[in-house]
Parts: sequence; structure tokens; C-alpha cells
Amino acid sequence: MDGVLLVLSGPSGAGKGTVCRVLLEKQPGLHLSVSATTRQPRSGEVDGVNYFFVSEEQFKNMVAGQELLEWARVYNHYYGTPVRAVQQALARGEDVLLEIDVQGGLQVKEKFPMAVLIFLLPPSRAELAARLKGRGTDSMEEIERRLQWADTELQYLERYDYVVINRQVAEAVVTIQAILTAEKCRPRRVKLDPSWVG
Amino acid sequence: MDGVLLVLSGPSGAGKGTVCRVLLEKQPGLHLSVSATTRQPRSGEVDGVNYFFVSEEQFKNMVAGQELLEWARVYNHYYGTPVRAVQQALARGEDVLLEIDVQGGLQVKEKFPMAVLIFLLPPSRAELAARLKGRGTDSMEEIERRLQWADTELQYLERYDYVVINRQVAEAVVTIQAILTAEKCRPRRVKLDPSWVG
Repeated sequence: MDGVLLVLSGPSGAGKGTVCRVLLEKQPGLHLSVSATTRQPRSGEVDGVNYFFVSEEQFKNMVAGQELLEWARVYNHYYGTPVRAVQQALARGEDVLLEIDVQGGLQVKEKFPMAVLIFLLPPSRAELAARLKGRGTDSMEEIERRLQWADTELQYLERYDYVVINRQVAEAVVTIQAILTAEKCRPRRVKLDPSWVG
Repeated sequence: MDGVLLVLSGPSGAGKGTVCRVLLEKQPGLHLSVSATTRQPRSGEVDGVNYFFVSEEQFKNMVAGQELLEWARVYNHYYGTPVRAVQQALARGEDVLLEIDVQGGLQVKEKFPMAVLIFLLPPSRAELAARLKGRGTDSMEEIERRLQWADTELQYLERYDYVVINRQVAEAVVTIQAILTAEKCRPRRVKLDPSWVG
């Protein structure tokens, strides 16, 4: 049986990173997709593990050759999801997790309708503002910009398959595990005993 | 938030009755829908609790008045699901469980597209045959008839939302609970904090 492609999106400050980390620990058979990027490796990052590190020319060739499930430019660098690695993992029966923005998520759904799109959302806008302030890394302008970006992303909520409110990380992870369990019961995904089909 | 209407179907011998009983014990907020029937109450059955006991004329009026979400004739009696009781329970935020045959399930989905249809299936046809024989209540002809009916019902599997293989009752119940958790995360069902929508 093919694995499930799980896409997790949500505003900056929703807790996507922590939820992904705990989810990957708790859910055997789920693996994080390795993105391609044109940015330089940071100390300790390993090619093929953290990212596939490619040149800008290589990246543009991947785009032209439709080798990316989705891609985006962030500041001066490109990031994208190599489609072949994802397909191979799914065919091996592994579930694959993508942590990407809403625009990327919708790109994936278009190319891969069986993908399961989950929107992770903090309980309220005030809670998101508090979390962003609590990180202490962003200026007030940057926080305001992120909140407005969250409002923009929220307009696409209806096009996602599921919305998970991140009140507590452990609770959000259990909910996402339930979604994965449910999606494995879709008629197209269930492998029936041959005695039924004969 | 409106509750979820859960429809459980599957061949006779799949274990629907047991799975429903355990599910109702384990899942707070989930209630079994009370059907209307023209058959006589058996000893101990209470009107409005086990069934709504109605006359054949009353039943026909309910059908004519579109008061039933689905109905069927079984031997000489009519059985149906009163739509108003289901709607009222859902509006109160309760989840409602219907245990009905595949034809009834598809009738419900047509009138109520938000209904969640689950097909409960034994691991294999041989296992179903063994369970039917093990009950010791049916003749060989009756068992063969039920197996053929299972084959017929299976043709509608793709129109169901989920398939749950009933290997162990406890495992099937946990899977159905996961489906309910997932369905409560559908964008149309999630009640967002007003700060998001303003």
C-alpha cells in the first residue's frame, strides 16, 4: 500500500517545527521530506540529510524539468521539494511529511491530489502575537508583518483538508496521528484481501 | 459546532453490533440514532429509546412527508431514520451513529453530504464465512446468501468515505474514533476563534 503524503502548513509562530519534530518521533513510518535548496550548508548540515544542496543553475534545471513538487524563493535563495524522492518513499509504503507554506501546499495538492493538507493554527490571533513576541527574535514591524501574512494565508484555509488548532503540542500531534490513521482507511488506499475482489 | 453524523455499514457478520456497542461506550458525545419501525416492541423495548414504534400508516406518512433520512423494508416490517431527531442532536453538538445497510448509507449521503460513511469489513471472505458459521444460527443456504449479499454490497465500497477492517473489535473501535477526530478537523466543521475571521 502506498504511503500518505502529509503536508503541514500554517503561519510562522504556529509551532510547525515543534509539532513536526514530536510527530516524527511518535509516528513510525513517517519521514520528513528532504528539500533542495540553493543556500549554503550551515555548520553540521549534511547534503542529502538536511537538504539537497544544489547550485542555482541546477535548481533552475529542476524547475524546468518539472522535478519539483513545489518550490519557492525566500529572500535570495530557492527551496523546493524533489518529486522523485517523495514518490519513491510513498511507493515503498513510507509516509512522507512536508512542512511548507500554504502556497506550496496548494501547488502540491494540484500535482498530487491524494496529498493530505493540514493547516496548523494557534488558538487565536492574540496567542500568535504573544508567541511571536515571546520568541524575542523579531522586531515589532516584523511581528506585524507576520500577523498580516497569517491573515492572508487563512484565506486559503477552506482549500486545506484539515485544520488543527495547536493548543498543546502533544494534543496537536495526537490529532495529526488520528488524521493519518483515518486517511489510511480511504477506499483508494486500503488493500483488500484478494478473496473480496475475486 | 455541529456534531458528526457517522454511518456504519457492512455485511452481516462483520461485527457491526459489537463494534457499535463498544464505540458508544468509549466515545463520549456519540449517541445511537433511534429508528422508527412498524414492528411490534419486544419484551423490554421502550418506545423512543430502542425504537419509535409506529403504525404502518404513520410510517407511510413519514415517508411521504420526507421525514426519514433513509428507510427500508425488511421482510414485512419497515425501518427508517427520522431526520428531525438526527438534525436536533447534531445541532446540539452531539455526534450521531447510524448502523444501517449500504443502500441506506448511500441514501443518507445523498440527503446529507456531510455524513461520514464507514464500511466495516471482516479481514477476508473466509473469515466472514467462519464467523457466520460460528454463530450457529443460520443454515448453509442462509450463510451462502449472506456471503453473496456481502459481494453485492462491496461493489459500493468506493462510494464510502472510509473502510475499516475488523480484525479485532478494540482496534476497529480505535480506528473509528480516529476517523471521528479527523472529521472534526474539517475546515467546514472547525469553529475558529473570532479574532481570525475579523
